[in-house]
Amino acid sequence: MYLDDLTTFEFGERLSSNRDTVVILPIGVVEEHGAHLPLSTDSLQSEYIAEALATELDALLMPPIRYGICNSTRNFPGTISLSFNTFRALIQEILEELCRHNVSNIVILSGHAGRIHMAALRVAADRVLEKFNVKMMILSDYDIIYKYAGKEFPEWDGHAGSVETSRIMAIRPELVKGRGERSKPNFPQYRILRHPEKCFPSGVMGDPTTASAEKGEKWNKLVVDELKKLILDMVASEE
Amino acid sequence: MYLDDLTTFEFGERLSSNRDTVVILPIGVVEEHGAHLPLSTDSLQSEYIAEALATELDALLMPPIRYGICNSTRNFPGTISLSFNTFRALIQEILEELCRHNVSNIVILSGHAGRIHMAALRVAADRVLEKFNVKMMILSDYDIIYKYAGKEFPEWDGHAGSVETSRIMAIRPELVKGRGERSKPNFPQYRILRHPEKCFPSGVMGDPTTASAEKGEKWNKLVVDELKKLILDMVASEE
Amino acid sequence: MYLDDLTTFEFGERLSSNRDTVVILPIGVVEEHGAHLPLSTDSLQSEYIAEALATELDALLMPPIRYGICNSTRNFPGTISLSFNTFRALIQEILEELCRHNVSNIVILSGHAGRIHMAALRVAADRVLEKFNVKMMILSDYDIIYKYAGKEFPEWDGHAGSVETSRIMAIRPELVKGRGERSKPNFPQYRILRHPEKCFPSGVMGDPTTASAEKGEKWNKLVVDELKKLILDMVASEE
Amino acid sequence: MYLDDLTTFEFGERLSSNRDTVVILPIGVVEEHGAHLPLSTDSLQSEYIAEALATELDALLMPPIRYGICNSTRNFPGTISLSFNTFRALIQEILEELCRHNVSNIVILSGHAGRIHMAALRVAADRVLEKFNVKMMILSDYDIIYKYAGKEFPEWDGHAGSVETSRIMAIRPELVKGRGERSKPNFPQYRILRHPEKCFPSGVMGDPTTASAEKGEKWNKLVVDELKKLILDMVASEE
Amino acid sequence: MYLDDLTTFEFGERLSSNRDTVVILPIGVVEEHGAHLPLSTDSLQSEYIAEALATELDALLMPPIRYGICNSTRNFPGTISLSFNTFRALIQEILEELCRHNVSNIVILSGHAGRIHMAALRVAADRVLEKFNVKMMILSDYDIIYKYAGKEFPEWDGHAGSVETSRIMAIRPELVKGRGERSKPNFPQYRILRHPEKCFPSGVMGDPTTASAEKGEKWNKLVVDELKKLILDMVASEE
Amino acid sequence: MYLDDLTTFEFGERLSSNRDTVVILPIGVVEEHGAHLPLSTDSLQSEYIAEALATELDALLMPPIRYGICNSTRNFPGTISLSFNTFRALIQEILEELCRHNVSNIVILSGHAGRIHMAALRVAADRVLEKFNVKMMILSDYDIIYKYAGKEFPEWDGHAGSVETSRIMAIRPELVKGRGERSKPNFPQYRILRHPEKCFPSGVMGDPTTASAEKGEKWNKLVVDELKKLILDMVASEE
Repeated sequence: MYLDDLTTFEFGERLSSNRDTVVILPIGVVEEHGAHLPLSTDSLQSEYIAEALATELDALLMPPIRYGICNSTRNFPGTISLSFNTFRALIQEILEELCRHNVSNIVILSGHAGRIHMAALRVAADRVLEKFNVKMMILSDYDIIYKYAGKEFPEWDGHAGSVETSRIMAIRPELVKGRGERSKPNFPQYRILRHPEKCFPSGVMGDPTTASAEKGEKWNKLVVDELKKLILDMVASEE
Repeated sequence: MYLDDLTTFEFGERLSSNRDTVVILPIGVVEEHGAHLPLSTDSLQSEYIAEALATELDALLMPPIRYGICNSTRNFPGTISLSFNTFRALIQEILEELCRHNVSNIVILSGHAGRIHMAALRVAADRVLEKFNVKMMILSDYDIIYKYAGKEFPEWDGHAGSVETSRIMAIRPELVKGRGERSKPNFPQYRILRHPEKCFPSGVMGDPTTASAEKGEKWNKLVVDELKKLILDMVASEE
Repeated sequence: MYLDDLTTFEFGERLSSNRDTVVILPIGVVEEHGAHLPLSTDSLQSEYIAEALATELDALLMPPIRYGICNSTRNFPGTISLSFNTFRALIQEILEELCRHNVSNIVILSGHAGRIHMAALRVAADRVLEKFNVKMMILSDYDIIYKYAGKEFPEWDGHAGSVETSRIMAIRPELVKGRGERSKPNFPQYRILRHPEKCFPSGVMGDPTTASAEKGEKWNKLVVDELKKLILDMVASEE
Repeated sequence: MYLDDLTTFEFGERLSSNRDTVVILPIGVVEEHGAHLPLSTDSLQSEYIAEALATELDALLMPPIRYGICNSTRNFPGTISLSFNTFRALIQEILEELCRHNVSNIVILSGHAGRIHMAALRVAADRVLEKFNVKMMILSDYDIIYKYAGKEFPEWDGHAGSVETSRIMAIRPELVKGRGERSKPNFPQYRILRHPEKCFPSGVMGDPTTASAEKGEKWNKLVVDELKKLILDMVASEE
Repeated sequence: MYLDDLTTFEFGERLSSNRDTVVILPIGVVEEHGAHLPLSTDSLQSEYIAEALATELDALLMPPIRYGICNSTRNFPGTISLSFNTFRALIQEILEELCRHNVSNIVILSGHAGRIHMAALRVAADRVLEKFNVKMMILSDYDIIYKYAGKEFPEWDGHAGSVETSRIMAIRPELVKGRGERSKPNFPQYRILRHPEKCFPSGVMGDPTTASAEKGEKWNKLVVDELKKLILDMVASEE
Repeated sequence: MYLDDLTTFEFGERLSSNRDTVVILPIGVVEEHGAHLPLSTDSLQSEYIAEALATELDALLMPPIRYGICNSTRNFPGTISLSFNTFRALIQEILEELCRHNVSNIVILSGHAGRIHMAALRVAADRVLEKFNVKMMILSDYDIIYKYAGKEFPEWDGHAGSVETSRIMAIRPELVKGRGERSKPNFPQYRILRHPEKCFPSGVMGDPTTASAEKGEKWNKLVVDELKKLILDMVASEE
């Protein structure tokens, strides 16, 4: 399942025999997620989904990257945030190496959905497309889940909230410390702040008290099912 | 109204006498906007709003920048797109120069709302905040308008569509060539494409045929009113 | 006249039908120009000349850039100065985008004539020539005017002096505040100074008291006439 | 054991209560290791040692990075190699983030020992020391093992050779495919080659046929014991 | 005379005992200079002057740098040209190292006078002044000599012409091959050219046939005398 | 012997008539070498060897570079150290210029053997090989000499020690001040230190008291002989 479990020659043969091999790069961050969820929260989600997809699609997984760009949470203890340019370059170079080795279907799945973090992934991919003809998909699993916001959960439920807590309860329940604290932060609109953490000192944006492992399993399954379909569409597409 | 209409000493005195002076930087792009709207479409909107705000708030306007980052439209004739890093650095350095001159309330208003373009503005501002204690607001006027999507106009109306066409009809009607063409593009989800223009060969995402100058005036007024309030809130805020 | 007044398809057709289309990029700065001239002084001059040339040559004008590199004036209130690399990259990328759209005759006209500022423009152009075969001309209108220094005006007349004041009196008289102050600065030769402004606290290098709108009109006409000829030579040249 | 298993507040308290907390960053690469060892070979070794050290020293482990700089193996299928600058920046920024969070004892342990790869780690650390007063140790476990070269194993045994194969047999025997092939490459001295892989087409530099899990356990234990002592010395040292 | 002839402790004592010690960095290039002058022509001149100044002023000489930026000559055999940014960074870092070691009077003397080359030196110095309070002078010896153009030699005499040939005849006569060829190039004004060498295929801009060692000695003496005075002024100045 | 003693046309003809011409770039540093050796110690050695090789092989010498990367000695008076990226770029661009001029056999010989310094040279060369097909060799003369460590001199003899002192006694005896001081530093293993100079305040790692000019001559001859053979092998090799 993991690409680097293979030997060099096994990898070479795999690519030669199946040019449509899908390679998935799971991305997470080390980031504050309230008093109840671990710093690895985003990593756990994307790696869980990526492993499920790898099984279903016989895809290869790249070694996960648990470093990315965190913005509003950057001043909480333990949050690790890279600069835009370094994160962009890291992803771009890994993509280019995959292209050099003839991989032609790549999915980058990020458990973290910050706007700047996601923009870095897209800029990386855009630059790769200037050099290589490769099919790529980039998303956070929350791009899928948030289509249900305002319907299945409140629109303001987000970071360390009900959905995210539910998913970690389903994936790694032993890392969840208690039920969490409901918190609806009030950010001044469009402002760029030096101390965004002052707007949500609990580190939560949402209502983790309504979380459950069952809900988490539902969301995880939903993401896997939808992504599986989209990846197969990409493999079948002409460009 | 424009900062550079002042002499050096007038500017110095203005800042000394009113440390709360708001400085607005209008941003646009040179970008394809269908067969009916000019390449300056995004520039016209942010400059129009910025001038209205400057009048209402006695703010100073920086010389507009009509260069930014365009992604899905980049392969249409005439679209000019900068790299992320160059655009980020340009904005960051201008912001740092304003801070060096003791400006303490800055608004960046972009007529273009592309995700990567907006991310570059935010990264620029974040870096400035590491060095200077300044109050900043960054937005596209479409951040305000899109809160009404699905209510006052279809959710899929966007680039060169009904709202945007209406606004240019209100601002510079002589630059609108005919009624435009309705087009609802179908982008494959989450894909990064070499040729996104193939998904909307007309260059339109929306229905410009329903546009009118009256609607445009309404949207323009709405943006000015809401922004005026938000900027006053920022000036009054502690940080 | 302005390139971005066109729609994408109008621009595409214009370039297809006339491969010799000249595109002019006017450059200015936000820079101290004494107690009598606005911070926009350099921008006003290059934009005025560029518009006159566009009319005479049926050329297209790029949206002006009013940001560049200022050195000896950088510590006066209001002067905005970019780093060499950011300004170079900005210009280089705009040039490359024009080349990508098949523009083959480009003129960069800068109202500001600082050595480092001009060097950045030239380095940008040199890099573009490594990739594209395009005809380019780069100059400040003062490159032309200074051929007359020591003859029609004193050699030491420069920044915010007689010629420059005359030209703004001709272009935007309402922005000229009084007659200005005569000042002949004494810079220590070849020194690189932390505080060059101490050598000319009035912000003037020259004698603005001898300025007149008539002189300004003469200089403006002279620049337009000479540039028109040089641009036609470039268009007619083989490389 | 893993830092990101903690919540933000647990991490904050851990650092406050024990300023001497050691943080270990394990580094590996995705790199050709002959027909018998997986691409993850270097990652497996540093992560194994790091986990053993974390247990013995109650240290915190950072999420491992399995991306680095590979040189002589870069043209074999599956090898992923970053540029010097990107890898250096990635490590530097992670180190700076740890310093920002008051970590004062850091160990970077790399399973890969390439000269350029190791130089990038050292340059990263040097730059961090310009800003932060932190105690750091950087090494490959092969820095320790190679002190025994020429004594306990032939000097020419290296990449995918006897020692490395033994260690993987001890750590993840199920990933070892057969016994490997003895190969003593003959590189032209001091040359920088476009195709270094031609000098060792088997991808092996050493004699894996003499490997055994017992030997691997011995080497692993030796590295853990020696490193434990060195890390305790660092914690106890004044700078 | 050369700084690096000293031991570390001799250098330390020298700086402690005389904080006004002047350090001179001679710069040259490897550049085409016609059929009669060596590629080292610019290096020979600045090193000759620097050595004379070091003797007269008891100054320290840095190891010369014979690499810089060449533009119009870049396509002739043997011309070596660095990028702007690399040359700027090289000079900036050397300057910063001198400042770190408490040098407070620095002269950069370049035998090459190309505009972009000189701009790189100035940008380097400007950045150093943002961090260190140091007195610096940057010039080409031709900045001094060209004040006599149009008087003592024709204005169009320059690269490999009468003055330059005379100076090499005085400095290293054995490297002068014959009398050279008179050539008055005709560059199209303000153009940036891909092949500037086509405008002067002989590689000469001037009239070397009028050169003599006597003239060269006169120019060399004139530069030394004037520079000596200017450097003493700088040492005596307050900033 | 020195490439820049030639005129442009002589250089062009030399390369045309002998495509196998070897070009050698000698590299040194300005670096502390104890109380008895000059800051130019490393430069003197590589330049001496390079000149000897140029004579024996009819090779061309590039103007020496006496600037590089110093690490453990950086805080001693007079040591000049460049950043990795600037030094790498400087070397890379010089190599690329040589390749542009059709040089196909290049030797970089560094008198300084620091790990980061040498890594920068190798990274520069690797990047050149991505663009040009050229034969390159990169080494410090100490790469050759250290094969004899533990045999002909103690393993711990290094910086400013017996061998190095002997060589300077043979090359420039007038720059050697006394016999030097024996010193065996004790660096904590694998540590990255802010103040490495505290581990060897004399600036010596070795025993210079056992040095002699005769030993120095022997080492110099040995390096020349071995390098001559290796360079001829490279010229004769296919790639």
